[in-house]
Amino acid sequence: MSDVALRPVLALIGGTGALGTGLARRWVKAGYAVHIGSRDLGKAKDAAAALAVPEDGMLPEGASYADAAAAADIVILTVPFAAQGEAIDAIKPSVSGKLIVDTTVPLPQPKAALVQLSEFASAAVAAQKRLGDVARVVSAFHNVPARRLQQDIMIDCDVLVFGDGLSDRHRTIALVQAAGMRGVHGGPLANSVAAEAMTSVLININRHYKADHVGIRITGIG
Amino acid sequence: MSDVALRPVLALIGGTGALGTGLARRWVKAGYAVHIGSRDLGKAKDAAAALAVPEDGMLPEGASYADAAAAADIVILTVPFAAQGEAIDAIKPSVSGKLIVDTTVPLPQPKAALVQLSEFASAAVAAQKRLGDVARVVSAFHNVPARRLQQDIMIDCDVLVFGDGLSDRHRTIALVQAAGMRGVHGGPLANSVAAEAMTSVLININRHYKADHVGIRITGIG
Repeated sequence: MSDVALRPVLALIGGTGALGTGLARRWVKAGYAVHIGSRDLGKAKDAAAALAVPEDGMLPEGASYADAAAAADIVILTVPFAAQGEAIDAIKPSVSGKLIVDTTVPLPQPKAALVQLSEFASAAVAAQKRLGDVARVVSAFHNVPARRLQQDIMIDCDVLVFGDGLSDRHRTIALVQAAGMRGVHGGPLANSVAAEAMTSVLININRHYKADHVGIRITGIG
Repeated sequence: MSDVALRPVLALIGGTGALGTGLARRWVKAGYAVHIGSRDLGKAKDAAAALAVPEDGMLPEGASYADAAAAADIVILTVPFAAQGEAIDAIKPSVSGKLIVDTTVPLPQPKAALVQLSEFASAAVAAQKRLGDVARVVSAFHNVPARRLQQDIMIDCDVLVFGDGLSDRHRTIALVQAAGMRGVHGGPLANSVAAEAMTSVLININRHYKADHVGIRITGIG
């Protein structure tokens, strides 16, 4: 069995945005089979076709939310917060027993730099409640400067990974590493609110210091 | 006028704990006049007497909460979260127009490694509501490994500073620097919840990685 066969097949739901295309780009390059899900099939196919594929790599495919999720082992949600509920409802019939990696952050406009907690405090907890026991949710990638993923550069940012299952977090941390970053166990899913809220703080810091890619590092480990 | 005369006089309310004595130690060393406030006057005097004072430095003084706050320009709250309300009520008559630096983090035992939001989401916002318009609250020092303050070592952790007033944040950042760390503008007081919640995540990371002084760094600025 080749390495590729051991790798989970990935679906990026909302894979045409900055975070989705950036992660897709890095995972395709690392040899993963990637499905790009969009509400607009044409956009999904365009985004998939635009990804550079290594010589021995697999062609990414564009599809609907449901079809992309159905084809994958791990489903990564990269939709804006306002679209999270609709996206989950669309994939729910296709994700039984699968791992869902939620990246959404409550950033109500126009005050994205102000922490505003969502109904269940955490967007990831809200996702788990919406999925019930159909699938397990892990959250990650909240604080990554998304546009930096589009380039072959080192990203000076750790990725905090939250989830109630240790092996789910390990699988997600492997994906973080494949995308060129360090994943750090942040504890149970309820802790996700800390990284979600930190995103607004980082937007604020970007504005205050006239920067455009601030991130966070966890010190004192490894 | 000497430098010392330009420096604000500080009061540490709850200054006998790990964070309070650690900050007091560093500020006394940096030449600040420091008052240690405790509910127990004997403990306050003992903690003040235990601080090493530089040759030209000022002797720190132990006092009650109210007396320490009355003697200071800036009042730093380093009490446990459960004691925050009582401490604020004790100093409220003595802090009109002063700057209050709140460091408290909601860490209900025994689950300190699980994010648990307080009544107003943020402990700092709760402090401001309790003080009303008597005094302005800034928050800081949430993520600092407190025991490291007791030693003359570099602390690999930034201090996020939250407050609705820019000059209040600047004054606090000067105190952060005097304690040997970098202060970063984190935005309005409502954003404090991000750093407060991050403390539980850091406790979780300490446990998971068997570390004892994890911290955070903001990357991409300065």
